[in-house]
Amino acid sequence: MKVLLVFAHPEPRSLNGSLRDVAIAELLAQGHDVRQTDLYGQRWKAVVDRDDFPALRSDDRLHPARASAEAFASGTLTDDVREEQEKLLWADAVILQFPLWWYTMPAILKGWIDRVYACGFAYGVGEHSDRHWGDRFGEGTLAGKRAMLVVTAGGWEEHYGPRGINGPIDDLLFPINHGVLHYPGFDVLPPFVAYRLDRMGEDAFPAMAEALRERMRNLAITSPIPFRRQNGGDYEIPSLRLRDGLGQDTVGFGLHQDPGTAPC
Amino acid sequence: MKVLLVFAHPEPRSLNGSLRDVAIAELLAQGHDVRQTDLYGQRWKAVVDRDDFPALRSDDRLHPARASAEAFASGTLTDDVREEQEKLLWADAVILQFPLWWYTMPAILKGWIDRVYACGFAYGVGEHSDRHWGDRFGEGTLAGKRAMLVVTAGGWEEHYGPRGINGPIDDLLFPINHGVLHYPGFDVLPPFVAYRLDRMGEDAFPAMAEALRERMRNLAITSPIPFRRQNGGDYEIPSLRLRDGLGQDTVGFGLHQDPGTAPC
Repeated sequence: MKVLLVFAHPEPRSLNGSLRDVAIAELLAQGHDVRQTDLYGQRWKAVVDRDDFPALRSDDRLHPARASAEAFASGTLTDDVREEQEKLLWADAVILQFPLWWYTMPAILKGWIDRVYACGFAYGVGEHSDRHWGDRFGEGTLAGKRAMLVVTAGGWEEHYGPRGINGPIDDLLFPINHGVLHYPGFDVLPPFVAYRLDRMGEDAFPAMAEALRERMRNLAITSPIPFRRQNGGDYEIPSLRLRDGLGQDTVGFGLHQDPGTAPC
Repeated sequence: MKVLLVFAHPEPRSLNGSLRDVAIAELLAQGHDVRQTDLYGQRWKAVVDRDDFPALRSDDRLHPARASAEAFASGTLTDDVREEQEKLLWADAVILQFPLWWYTMPAILKGWIDRVYACGFAYGVGEHSDRHWGDRFGEGTLAGKRAMLVVTAGGWEEHYGPRGINGPIDDLLFPINHGVLHYPGFDVLPPFVAYRLDRMGEDAFPAMAEALRERMRNLAITSPIPFRRQNGGDYEIPSLRLRDGLGQDTVGFGLHQDPGTAPC
């Protein structure tokens, strides 16, 4: 497989950096082609602004979605953004690796999403009408590819458990797994999450590294999270409300997984 | 009251800009003192990197939390960060206004959190031991102040409803309301959310503006979301797991609200 790893930590000599090296070494050992986007190494521009749309006239109002759609359609997005889109199109699998800062990704990675996910590329794809609300949530430009988060957290696993104070980790990551990855079409694998990073002794690293290697070895065969497809019949259109009778035993984000296709 | 509004949209002539102007005008009309952080206007630096810690030697490993703690303790954080911390200490109420991009805040606002929320200021406050896991979630530097989100979304309200495909808006905003605002001590008010922004006709603006004015008029008296306090007895320490017997009728993020103190 062709694998793109997007890395969002400012220090290559960090534990995050070591885990990144472990993942890449294992992917190469498995015979995969690997490319990397090292956001700090590339000094990635994090903020969507007028400079992203060179064709915009200086007195034009900046409407980010419209400007993005026009620049994508006319091929005038900036080189850095087009290069990342090309990497996404090239990849069979995409890994986003980041430390959990304030319960989500660091700004530099959010800015990669905000800028690379252009209108016409990651959203605004397919028919948009009262009968079909775009090709998204399981369909779209990146359909057929796999994606997976590799996340490090300072707190304890219990703190992110079903009754932990931070909220369940799968719910905290839902806006990313479902809203950022499933949205443009990815099959989303369960995340790899490493806890207690800040106080972890060196003796704990080998087991964590081996767990990550195992996930890398199984990248092609791990069952995805069974998120429902928007256009698979489970949702009313255009309200995009889950049909009555589905997900009766659950509430919240859990509604958007189909228990019938859950991995064994 | 003293009110700080943090604004995160790149175009002042946008609908977001108009709503910001409406909010500020109403706050001033009510006699409040208002300051603003216009992140795009200030060309806010969004990314945490070595430049944030001038005291760090060039060959030192960058450990963001440790570097942040040292810089905060020694008064060597950069001027832009210290100015925002001073504004937060000044304010009685803080409003974060942003468009929902990929189900959360734009990178520039995430970078304001990542940088301004230094260790010793917004986290790492109070005793950290197996008996007391810091002053957080209802306690901390910003305790006694109010905070509120003002959010615009392109999609329909139904899409963010209890069974809507995006997930319920209160769950999508939980990592911000609970993890970013309640964490350092804020009392968090229910958010103001404006839907269907992209296709809204001009005739819909007056009603939306009036609804926002109403929220501004009630800023001092609106009941906060009844998030549980970490150190109020509801959680086991140090697992930070909600005690058995509490929140029996719910799961997920909803566990962390106390139904006994819900607003009427």
